Amino acid sequence: MTSSISPDVLAARLQRLRDQRPRVHCITNTVAQTYTANALLALGAIPSMTIWPEEIEDFVGAAEALLVNLGTFDSMRRNAVEAALAVAQERRISWALDPAHAEASPHRIGLARALLDREPAVLRCNRPEFERLFEATVDVGTVTRAAAKLGLTIAVTGARDIVSDGARTILLDNGHELLTRVTAAGCAATAIVAAFHAIEADSLVATAAALSSIAIAAEIAGENGAGPGGLQVGLLDELYRLTPETLGARLRMTAVRPEDITD
Amino acid sequence: MTSSISPDVLAARLQRLRDQRPRVHCITNTVAQTYTANALLALGAIPSMTIWPEEIEDFVGAAEALLVNLGTFDSMRRNAVEAALAVAQERRISWALDPAHAEASPHRIGLARALLDREPAVLRCNRPEFERLFEATVDVGTVTRAAAKLGLTIAVTGARDIVSDGARTILLDNGHELLTRVTAAGCAATAIVAAFHAIEADSLVATAAALSSIAIAAEIAGENGAGPGGLQVGLLDELYRLTPETLGARLRMTAVRPEDITD
Amino acid sequence: MTSSISPDVLAARLQRLRDQRPRVHCITNTVAQTYTANALLALGAIPSMTIWPEEIEDFVGAAEALLVNLGTFDSMRRNAVEAALAVAQERRISWALDPAHAEASPHRIGLARALLDREPAVLRCNRPEFERLFEATVDVGTVTRAAAKLGLTIAVTGARDIVSDGARTILLDNGHELLTRVTAAGCAATAIVAAFHAIEADSLVATAAALSSIAIAAEIAGENGAGPGGLQVGLLDELYRLTPETLGARLRMTAVRPEDITD
Repeated sequence: MTSSISPDVLAARLQRLRDQRPRVHCITNTVAQTYTANALLALGAIPSMTIWPEEIEDFVGAAEALLVNLGTFDSMRRNAVEAALAVAQERRISWALDPAHAEASPHRIGLARALLDREPAVLRCNRPEFERLFEATVDVGTVTRAAAKLGLTIAVTGARDIVSDGARTILLDNGHELLTRVTAAGCAATAIVAAFHAIEADSLVATAAALSSIAIAAEIAGENGAGPGGLQVGLLDELYRLTPETLGARLRMTAVRPEDITD
Repeated sequence: MTSSISPDVLAARLQRLRDQRPRVHCITNTVAQTYTANALLALGAIPSMTIWPEEIEDFVGAAEALLVNLGTFDSMRRNAVEAALAVAQERRISWALDPAHAEASPHRIGLARALLDREPAVLRCNRPEFERLFEATVDVGTVTRAAAKLGLTIAVTGARDIVSDGARTILLDNGHELLTRVTAAGCAATAIVAAFHAIEADSLVATAAALSSIAIAAEIAGENGAGPGGLQVGLLDELYRLTPETLGARLRMTAVRPEDITD
Repeated sequence: MTSSISPDVLAARLQRLRDQRPRVHCITNTVAQTYTANALLALGAIPSMTIWPEEIEDFVGAAEALLVNLGTFDSMRRNAVEAALAVAQERRISWALDPAHAEASPHRIGLARALLDREPAVLRCNRPEFERLFEATVDVGTVTRAAAKLGLTIAVTGARDIVSDGARTILLDNGHELLTRVTAAGCAATAIVAAFHAIEADSLVATAAALSSIAIAAEIAGENGAGPGGLQVGLLDELYRLTPETLGARLRMTAVRPEDITD
């Protein structure tokens, strides 16, 4: 479970995802559904999105990974999550949790906390969400300890991503500032995190490969001076074009030494 | 009802759609709604999308064609379909059925089969959907016989589209391979199929004109080396710019001779 | 409340919106949600979109403006509007109403009329919606009198926008003809109208600054010959890039003299 995380390893996982084309079932918000589906397709995965009780078990049963995103949540999505998690647990497929602006709503924070007890492989969130969920400022120490305590991978993304499984913590510095000016980029990132869990059992490796892929694709898409509209379109193009070699060559990843994590 | 299907005839139907600007009511999935609306608008039709019981009868009552797509289906959509079909039947407007990944769910296959008994003018589907619906592999024979048996037009789309009304069967070879890497392209195609039924009573002609329009627009959009993001944007631009002359000139259509259809 | 409306004043409001980055809660239709969120983000505002009863009060409670759009309306949205308006009234935040194709449905016209009694700051609509709502053709007189009678700002948009608060009436002539060929542009415009109400108490000034911003961004985006796909993308880029100087320089605004308003 604790293989080394090198540029070559992440590059190889991108190739594996392309070869295996995993199915990812997404329970996600209506704002991000279309872009999430397009990002997964561009990368090489196959999305599905139904939340109807009559159908969701079949779709999750055919998927290799699951995303639960709490944006535009409602009663039907709550029921869909229960049905989906039951199938995911039975089939032992990994799932990723995205609390999607839970900082704005105590109710959504409560939902997110309850779901953290249902054994997600990974939590991908922004800084404000982490801070409300764990009542702590974001730094390598707080993220590492939260991951260790909960027994999962936590990725707090921003200008610099902090990713930890409790035992290993890494920093990722790729990306583009305009990602904060488009909707659904974070939601699509969590879907891609889920997709990599379909082809890699080491959750930290899967999460790092996923976040690097989307961040480097955004970086390349942003190099021609695109605004937020052009960046969204270019990000899909570059997710499609991204090669393992480019991923390996552009990756800016730093391993945090345990002694650098203060209590 | 069985006029000849020539490039000139299809080109003339595109001009007629542009002139008449038909209203198309779409009961479709939340992932494809926006792109479907944009594709219809770019082409020259006018979309509406409500599924609310209190409003759907008025909207279908003002429309000249109807789309029923089974993606992200739910109870509200099921009720909407009943209300919409009642109005469509009363007003004798044509409707198109898209089973949207029904191969993944026995329940959705059941829904699709039940709707095939409700006299759609046309079924537009992918290969896996056809194969599950009719328990047969896809070839000119199986598609032709299924169309003849059900008394409607069937279009199975892919690298090569097979389109048949049971009496006449044609092959269409335009398109672009990246269409499989964007969401909503197939759903939008079925909406455009519905739109052409608003201005053409011969369902095979309407279906061929619709599928050719979107396939040729995609072909042109893909010629500059776009990735999946650029293709989506360019497809809307080219649906808007497509002239009847370009449609006629680029069309790659083959009529299947009856003696070539094996039992 | 009746400050002068000059190009400099509108330009200054754009700068203020950029500086304050207001939160705008949007109860809007599923077709327009994504583009609306992207337009608000590109401009510099922060959108939220939930309609779930358990969460909406928290989200509206954290917002500085509210949008109510009647597209793809349903029971859940109706409940969401009630909860949102209660919070908006208590917190005295402004809200904008978009009747979204209400002309097609007597039921939706009824909803829109009932909501006009709930003290929106502004109604943004198209010509057919105004004509059905007020049973009058659109001209400076009918719009001015409707605004005066209801005590709110009314903006009827099209090739030429007519905007009035009953005391002052202006005409805005920026924009691009392809805006009629993309979905969600009008819905996004009303969201931007709501956003400017978060930073400007004079509703006519806020509405004029908002409509000018999106119209001039569209105008610039359309100058390179884009089709409807390219225009949508470019509009987001230009909303992001638009400077107060460009807004002021390109603005085509005419004040209607009271004596020119015929009874």
